[in-house]
Amino acid sequence: MKKNLLLSVLLTAGVSINMFAQDAPDPAIVQKIRDEGLKNSKVMEIAFNLTDVSGPRLSGSPGLKRAQDWAVSQLKTWGMVNANREAWGKFGKGWEVQKNYAAITVPYYHAIIAIPKAWTPGTNGAIKGDVVYIKADTITDLEKYRGKLAGKVVILDAKPPVEINFTKPDASRYTDSALNVMAAATPQESGGRGGIGQRRGNFASLLALRTALSAFEVKEGVALVLSQARGTDGTVFTTNGASYRDTARAVAPELETSSEDYQRILRLVKAGIKVTMEADIKTEFFTNDLQGYNVVGEIPGTDAKLKDQLVMLGGHLDSWHGATGGTDNGAGAAVMMEAMRILKAIGFKPKRTIRIALWSGEEQGLFGSKNYVTNHFGDSQTMELKSDQAKISAYYNLDNGTGKIRGIYLQGNAPAGPIFQSWLNPFKDLGAGTVTIRNTGSTDHVPFDALGIPGFQFIQDSMDYGSRTHHSNQDTYDKLSEDDLKQAATIVASFVYNTAQRTDMIPRKELPKPSPPRTF
Amino acid sequence: MKKNLLLSVLLTAGVSINMFAQDAPDPAIVQKIRDEGLKNSKVMEIAFNLTDVSGPRLSGSPGLKRAQDWAVSQLKTWGMVNANREAWGKFGKGWEVQKNYAAITVPYYHAIIAIPKAWTPGTNGAIKGDVVYIKADTITDLEKYRGKLAGKVVILDAKPPVEINFTKPDASRYTDSALNVMAAATPQESGGRGGIGQRRGNFASLLALRTALSAFEVKEGVALVLSQARGTDGTVFTTNGASYRDTARAVAPELETSSEDYQRILRLVKAGIKVTMEADIKTEFFTNDLQGYNVVGEIPGTDAKLKDQLVMLGGHLDSWHGATGGTDNGAGAAVMMEAMRILKAIGFKPKRTIRIALWSGEEQGLFGSKNYVTNHFGDSQTMELKSDQAKISAYYNLDNGTGKIRGIYLQGNAPAGPIFQSWLNPFKDLGAGTVTIRNTGSTDHVPFDALGIPGFQFIQDSMDYGSRTHHSNQDTYDKLSEDDLKQAATIVASFVYNTAQRTDMIPRKELPKPSPPRTF
Repeated sequence: MKKNLLLSVLLTAGVSINMFAQDAPDPAIVQKIRDEGLKNSKVMEIAFNLTDVSGPRLSGSPGLKRAQDWAVSQLKTWGMVNANREAWGKFGKGWEVQKNYAAITVPYYHAIIAIPKAWTPGTNGAIKGDVVYIKADTITDLEKYRGKLAGKVVILDAKPPVEINFTKPDASRYTDSALNVMAAATPQESGGRGGIGQRRGNFASLLALRTALSAFEVKEGVALVLSQARGTDGTVFTTNGASYRDTARAVAPELETSSEDYQRILRLVKAGIKVTMEADIKTEFFTNDLQGYNVVGEIPGTDAKLKDQLVMLGGHLDSWHGATGGTDNGAGAAVMMEAMRILKAIGFKPKRTIRIALWSGEEQGLFGSKNYVTNHFGDSQTMELKSDQAKISAYYNLDNGTGKIRGIYLQGNAPAGPIFQSWLNPFKDLGAGTVTIRNTGSTDHVPFDALGIPGFQFIQDSMDYGSRTHHSNQDTYDKLSEDDLKQAATIVASFVYNTAQRTDMIPRKELPKPSPPRTF
Repeated sequence: MKKNLLLSVLLTAGVSINMFAQDAPDPAIVQKIRDEGLKNSKVMEIAFNLTDVSGPRLSGSPGLKRAQDWAVSQLKTWGMVNANREAWGKFGKGWEVQKNYAAITVPYYHAIIAIPKAWTPGTNGAIKGDVVYIKADTITDLEKYRGKLAGKVVILDAKPPVEINFTKPDASRYTDSALNVMAAATPQESGGRGGIGQRRGNFASLLALRTALSAFEVKEGVALVLSQARGTDGTVFTTNGASYRDTARAVAPELETSSEDYQRILRLVKAGIKVTMEADIKTEFFTNDLQGYNVVGEIPGTDAKLKDQLVMLGGHLDSWHGATGGTDNGAGAAVMMEAMRILKAIGFKPKRTIRIALWSGEEQGLFGSKNYVTNHFGDSQTMELKSDQAKISAYYNLDNGTGKIRGIYLQGNAPAGPIFQSWLNPFKDLGAGTVTIRNTGSTDHVPFDALGIPGFQFIQDSMDYGSRTHHSNQDTYDKLSEDDLKQAATIVASFVYNTAQRTDMIPRKELPKPSPPRTF
């Protein structure tokens, strides 16, 4: 059924069925890759080093630098060439948490679960202050608090989180029927190039209020701001509270607070019960080097005609700061490193050059990959292309958590469909067989796609990515599924192998038209 | 179907069908109770005061005293008589947390989620120490650590928690088929009096090792002990680390640590990577008053012949210390107080005296209820009964979380079945209709049952009691379901009303035989 559908898509697209012939994978090579990836895997060891050992990997932070240095060193140890931290341009300030303690002390003692918002300052040492509830629907409402907030802890209204979860387990995998729907999607449904923009509602007035409030808090000398985190039961989803830019406006110290702790404090103060808090938050900014870096490394091509051509694979290495980015995206980074290791371990001498890239600045706007693409391949706004744009066959990305690969998104690239279907054939027993014409967005294949380079993200089981780990304080090594990561690395290695050896490059979509600047 | 089954149970038990006549509830009264309980409810206000305002309510703690004082005062405000904190005997030391901070500082900074184990001492002020992994299968294995643990943080092996949850939502309610199975249970299945004992495996050697390790830690001057908490994603289930008894042995400071944080530290130290921690734990013991107390209060009976007879309702007010005991058992305590309020609000002048009891020491072994029963009604070991044992019609308990009432456990008391079935009839639209011959144990109706007094616990929807709230750091007011608590209070008020007015007392089972001392 899937094949028939794909065939009809193909014929519509005018693609020759002869393409199948060159794309039947060599069973002996597949077996070698499977043996190395499934039986001799190092993916958990790699993940351990990127997460537990390196710590949180916020873009620009010392933790990210530790992980990058380890990755470069490990790629070299495995025999990769040109392994280095490659600057992609100006990012901004590094930042890390160096102390994080907060508790209510009146009406009784209770230490809260909270994470400093990224790029916010710490408190002025150990502080103690009463909690003040601010009720402001407009900027002028703020006036009534003037002169009353110095040394105080500020809290605002926030809705309690959604009620007890009766319906869905924390984690899930794709069902066969969901995969069938994806496989049956038509090019008309693919939905453009994939979303790199951000939906902007009519939030201008809310934004203005927030900006005014933030400045008011600083001016009034607020000791600490509480904001309610998404998440329940001790899971705190983190964000940033200020810009990473070196020109960022000053903000007050701000704690993303577990919903249970936030709502408790809010209920008490709204009932007129005095709540006093103590806190000691120390954060450190790093401004010596404002550059952003990606890790790159290569297995050089060996075919005289093809070695200047590239196959790329990657995923972002940066994470949020509340945990160690196990699933976002320690998983993807570890899988891509492991795929490189597998290819090296089986003694592969590729025709085309294989290059891994572990991006940074992804969480702030795909900066690492976008700037890399601009630096190496061309400008997606003007569509001025560099010569290497024509020499890169494909980029493969992994960034949807720890779930195994179930297939691949074509990003509307119909001619690539039968090739990938053929490449997935030997992995159907591992649960990966779906090719969908659909787009997926929000990660580092998008800047490639935007410049007309075939860029792909695999379909992955979602696991507990949405409910528990994605950007949360619980995104740790523990949330990695070893079997899933082994499977993913094996399949990625095989895709990269096939792309490196294929007579032709991966077919391309029509080149996108120049476009005005977009917000990533 | 349920009725037919119950009838056959009844006929087997030789009970007259005439009992139905006197047990048809008065629809006008039911409507009054429903109006007051469902439309004018104060149950969330009560719960707010018992949880958010009072704080954690560990037995013997200042938090429990605050909640007890508030409950006594509230019962008086509503016009109850004889409302007071009634001592039930010696409990032990009060204890509370006054500072709770711990973090790893090497190889990088990360504040951990952890709760001091109940009745453990704090650290010696703010401490800093390296983590030492102890591997000891026998007591002699400890010797190799002698002289090496002073000022250190100790960690032991612990299995990682169960994997990602794909199968069950955090919360659930009873299905119709599960309720039908309960309704169809036979007396043979009821399984004795209900479990007040604790299963003791062959853990003697493990216990000896633990005891030796604990003494070793103290003697060697360990700065802090980490133990892995049950729970994932920031949920930490708490226990005690030492006895509440004033004669308790000294132990080292011990933190129940979230599984993610525990496993991270364990992986690092087992990989030979140095981990340093800082911590500042302050706990306070209270030894001025070692007595345990229950809160009691009454609506006095008004019938000349029946006013010396009693109907009791209650639930334990004490909680664990990691949160505010929202579902265990703020829910039950609030519902029982609300049931009293409803009865008072509708102007009820009961024939029999109605007495509420909010127990303490439940979490340590049903101490409050057991001692209350002993003090007022007799000794369940010798079966020496006091005269009041014959004057109490029934005791109703609520302690299975925030879930609404779905029916009632008969504790093997078949003759009570048709009475309760009749009393539940007006509440089938609220989901409560199941009467099961089965026992349920582990809470405060058990000591009544053990002395031959009809003691009952309602069947309640489990919600997220097992997965998230029961004894955890997440057992807060937020986890209370307002609609469920209103329903429960309404039904309890109606049961208590009916019991107070019924011509006869609730039928009794055969008096249990004297039994040797049991471990609660």
